[in-house]
Amino acid sequence: MSVIDEVTRELSRLPGVGPRTATRLVYHLLRGTTDDVRRLSRAIEALADRVRPCRLCGNFSEGEICHICADSGRDRSVVCVVENAFEVRSIDQTGEFRGLFHVLGGRLSPLDGVGPRELNVEGLVTRVEDPAGDIQEAILATNPSVEGEATAVYLEGVLRPLGVRVTRLARGIPVGSDLEYVDGSTLAEALAGRREM
Amino acid sequence: MSVIDEVTRELSRLPGVGPRTATRLVYHLLRGTTDDVRRLSRAIEALADRVRPCRLCGNFSEGEICHICADSGRDRSVVCVVENAFEVRSIDQTGEFRGLFHVLGGRLSPLDGVGPRELNVEGLVTRVEDPAGDIQEAILATNPSVEGEATAVYLEGVLRPLGVRVTRLARGIPVGSDLEYVDGSTLAEALAGRREM
Repeated sequence: MSVIDEVTRELSRLPGVGPRTATRLVYHLLRGTTDDVRRLSRAIEALADRVRPCRLCGNFSEGEICHICADSGRDRSVVCVVENAFEVRSIDQTGEFRGLFHVLGGRLSPLDGVGPRELNVEGLVTRVEDPAGDIQEAILATNPSVEGEATAVYLEGVLRPLGVRVTRLARGIPVGSDLEYVDGSTLAEALAGRREM
Repeated sequence: MSVIDEVTRELSRLPGVGPRTATRLVYHLLRGTTDDVRRLSRAIEALADRVRPCRLCGNFSEGEICHICADSGRDRSVVCVVENAFEVRSIDQTGEFRGLFHVLGGRLSPLDGVGPRELNVEGLVTRVEDPAGDIQEAILATNPSVEGEATAVYLEGVLRPLGVRVTRLARGIPVGSDLEYVDGSTLAEALAGRREM
């Protein structure tokens, strides 16, 4: 197999990249300087070499502990529980949350063989129970899907007996959306969760 | 800058990949095995190390001469002139063309400082004039844009005096399209180029 075909195949494994897009990307790379291509290759290699899960929260990290867990300025009384590390980034970038995170590494999905033991639930319990820690609230920020919901319900059952406050993200109308196009369940949630103005 | 930010920046330089897509790709890579990530990195590195322009036609090649120029089964009397190596692939994959190619490396674009000397025109003339060669027809397959047209007109002026037949790709209605959505200039070309049934 030629190098071009090989890179095309590797790139087309990425989500949202079909064979045609992959080919276009390869030819784009070939039009650039070899330095550009090497920089991309080296950066990707560094991903494999240097990034690993944070020992505490499971977020991706270049050290044993990620920059969020290591940040002494964060509020250590709240932990936001997410399915994947990508969501850590999304939530952190809002700038509205200054607490800690916990990455489950997925959601409960019995059909795919993902039970509580496949997720990092034990680590979460350990953190909440840790006498040296100070976690008073767990915000369940799993996805608003059937499986994400089931995961949140399961976690609530595990966490509430430990004496922490268990909350979840508000449901409602997305900012900037049009009521006409909001689905019924979201509208129902938005009504149920209405707040005083 | 963290490794994740670095790969995100490098990936978002690719065409059609914005910062958000780049971030998603990086997190996708991180979810996979390090072997997968290394394979991608190594394949991209091989692009920089092993792929170079074919000495004859300018197509990308892993040797001094590309697999098309090296293929003794190809028709050496016809050369298809394209702007970029990507088009070699597209045309070759139709299976309808068994001649040789010549890659210009762009199109004439005075505003961007691209004149005939910036393109591989001299190499084309040398090939057409080569007494050991057998080129009898040059198919101008530049893009149907203003600049692609200007390039074709310029090349015609250069090649015709050399005694070769100079042709260009037919214009007309794209296969599978709907007349209703075909623009006026294309329709006009399709009418002008109509053929007996």
